[in-house]
Amino acid sequence: MTAVEPFDAVDVIRAKRDGGTVPEDALRWMVDAYTRGYVADAQMASFAMAVLLNGMERDEIRVLTEAMIASGERMSFARLGKPTVDKHSTGGVGDKITLPLAPLVAAFGVAVPQLSGRGLGHTGGTLDKLESIPGWRAALSNEELFAQLEGVGAVICAAGSGLAPADKKLYALRDVTGTVEAIPLIASSIMSKKIAEGTGALVLDVKFGSGAFMRDVDKARELARTMVALGTDSGVATTALLTDMNTPLGLAIGNANEVRESVEVLAGGGPADIIELTVALAREMLSLAGQPDADVEKALQDGRAMDAWREMIRAQDGDPDAALPAPRETHTVVAARDGVVSRMDALPFGIAAWRLGAGRARAEDPVIHAAGIDLHVKPGDRIAAGQPVFTLLADDENRFARALDALDGAWEIGAEAPASTPLVLERITA
Amino acid sequence: MTAVEPFDAVDVIRAKRDGGTVPEDALRWMVDAYTRGYVADAQMASFAMAVLLNGMERDEIRVLTEAMIASGERMSFARLGKPTVDKHSTGGVGDKITLPLAPLVAAFGVAVPQLSGRGLGHTGGTLDKLESIPGWRAALSNEELFAQLEGVGAVICAAGSGLAPADKKLYALRDVTGTVEAIPLIASSIMSKKIAEGTGALVLDVKFGSGAFMRDVDKARELARTMVALGTDSGVATTALLTDMNTPLGLAIGNANEVRESVEVLAGGGPADIIELTVALAREMLSLAGQPDADVEKALQDGRAMDAWREMIRAQDGDPDAALPAPRETHTVVAARDGVVSRMDALPFGIAAWRLGAGRARAEDPVIHAAGIDLHVKPGDRIAAGQPVFTLLADDENRFARALDALDGAWEIGAEAPASTPLVLERITA
Repeated sequence: MTAVEPFDAVDVIRAKRDGGTVPEDALRWMVDAYTRGYVADAQMASFAMAVLLNGMERDEIRVLTEAMIASGERMSFARLGKPTVDKHSTGGVGDKITLPLAPLVAAFGVAVPQLSGRGLGHTGGTLDKLESIPGWRAALSNEELFAQLEGVGAVICAAGSGLAPADKKLYALRDVTGTVEAIPLIASSIMSKKIAEGTGALVLDVKFGSGAFMRDVDKARELARTMVALGTDSGVATTALLTDMNTPLGLAIGNANEVRESVEVLAGGGPADIIELTVALAREMLSLAGQPDADVEKALQDGRAMDAWREMIRAQDGDPDAALPAPRETHTVVAARDGVVSRMDALPFGIAAWRLGAGRARAEDPVIHAAGIDLHVKPGDRIAAGQPVFTLLADDENRFARALDALDGAWEIGAEAPASTPLVLERITA
Repeated sequence: MTAVEPFDAVDVIRAKRDGGTVPEDALRWMVDAYTRGYVADAQMASFAMAVLLNGMERDEIRVLTEAMIASGERMSFARLGKPTVDKHSTGGVGDKITLPLAPLVAAFGVAVPQLSGRGLGHTGGTLDKLESIPGWRAALSNEELFAQLEGVGAVICAAGSGLAPADKKLYALRDVTGTVEAIPLIASSIMSKKIAEGTGALVLDVKFGSGAFMRDVDKARELARTMVALGTDSGVATTALLTDMNTPLGLAIGNANEVRESVEVLAGGGPADIIELTVALAREMLSLAGQPDADVEKALQDGRAMDAWREMIRAQDGDPDAALPAPRETHTVVAARDGVVSRMDALPFGIAAWRLGAGRARAEDPVIHAAGIDLHVKPGDRIAAGQPVFTLLADDENRFARALDALDGAWEIGAEAPASTPLVLERITA
């Protein structure tokens, strides 16, 4: 078998191990041979660790990404009569921005193909949230996807399993071999799927802080720069916002309650941070689509974004007017003293919501759509003793104890308002 | 299953990946869980790459070695009425030193249990060489081994498969994952087997140069120091010689011809470099056995070493007087000009001998005992045009072409003698 293979996995591993650059054809072969099972898991794991510790050149990351794209099907939206722009968030706690954002941008005549995933661990999944809506379905055929992009403009649906199968295999391997945190591998994993999707432009919401995948702002910036370079090198106009994920986004953490909050924003209301981030990302997307001066706030106020939302939900058999699932049990935590909320740490709130049933521990588990946490205040808000701080939502009161364990020490009421930090820290362009 | 395991492989991998020290109990668990198949090859491969790139503390190497020893049986020679000393070479081209060395040291009343391996790739295996001798058998029962150590003193036999099985599994994995070259892993691999063997003292011949496993002298020195520290920490008195492997050792490279050269040394003759290294290693071994002033050269001259050799070969059913296998085909290369041999590069000579059939490409292949190379000159020797430089030995003349390819540019005849370099560069002690 060796005789017909043009490269040897050990040579590829050694090149990276010794700090060198893997030649383009050898790197393409490595990904292809791994996908078809010739290169063993153990070899790819050793290679992934060498990448994590020794890094990759910009060109190597591009080739790796192209090789993962080449492992599966590649879509194209070129036949649509309008520009396409996609958004990707690296994930956070209370991050429902895709829900108001996709219809908002579509309201300007832009196609927004949001091929999304489900949640795992403490960060929620966009599809899980939308499945709170009675009737709504995540799975669309390619024909349905195109028809909806052509008509409504906004689509949020499940990514087909045919996109970048090499990435799926590699991601599962990285998860068990301590190699998740390699920036070249994270960047190529995200971007291979987005580029295979066929979007014309892409805006990245790269989060840093306790509730983010990257806690460290410098690492998040490096990831953002790597992905912007990669998108650009692959012909997809890409920009990124570096955004703060130390505090939960908005007041709702869960599924049904996040849909409710998204609808508030589409109705011209909602929490200030959700509006700010939705507007900032919409401006980036519309800029890339050739409308840098679009009046985004107006479309939230005058009902155009809401109309697009209702059309989008209906197109996928959802009822935008149906009642959302309500929790059977609630537990409200009140303030023990007067003061100002000085801190709410995103990670423990995400973990608590997960333990309440809003998230899943294994990919095959269901989520409980009504479960989660409603915040009544946010850092900087004044509160009096006895007033509610947050309410836990669950289907089973036995879940409250472990959620409260996670929240122990996760929030504070102090004498003074915390120093204000910007939600959008930086804009990163090619 | 996870619930009953005290550690998580990903945590162990991350600790090493992030430059930390793996806690002792976690490291012992990792080796044990890998040996029984709970930790996957991919996880151990990723860990091995992290060790290669981030290193290990002296204490971690000791724990890793102890864990590999604990994976199998452990022998003890305590019931022998004499000291035991073993020698290990990291391998080279023409390295037959174990053959004259073991009987030479045994001639001084010391037990020398040389549990040896077979060759793979361009470095020869001690057992392969001895199997050139009609009747000689490598496999001994533990009872036979003890009886021979008690009587003859010297034993060269196959290491039992029960010693350090974790090392066997890990070594096979490292071979295909580009992680062979990690000094902590090389050191623990060698030393786990030697310590499990139960020797009281150990002399290491750590080679550097083109024909050695470690080309770089600094890496070889680091390996030697690591192994000496490891032996010492494990209660085995250990010293090392750092020796030059840029030029083949002696004039014979192969199997039967190396036995013949060893017998010449035991008869008081033989090439100067073989004598020098045999004597230097014997002195180290006898020092550790409490005889620092033993007259080693005398035992080569007066027949005592030869007597021990003949006893040792006979004890394992070999006939020391039988004719050794002779090659069916030979091909002699002669000098094109007058001059001085200025260079003979060990690696290509090793590869050429291997291609002639003296070595094996896969562990299950046989070796051809008569195959190899006889050198007629060494660097520094004067030669006249038309005089033989070396003779290739094979059973099939079709093997000559590829052997000659390997030797292209591997040796030179110049105007002046090359600068002389010491064979034994340094002595390394605890």
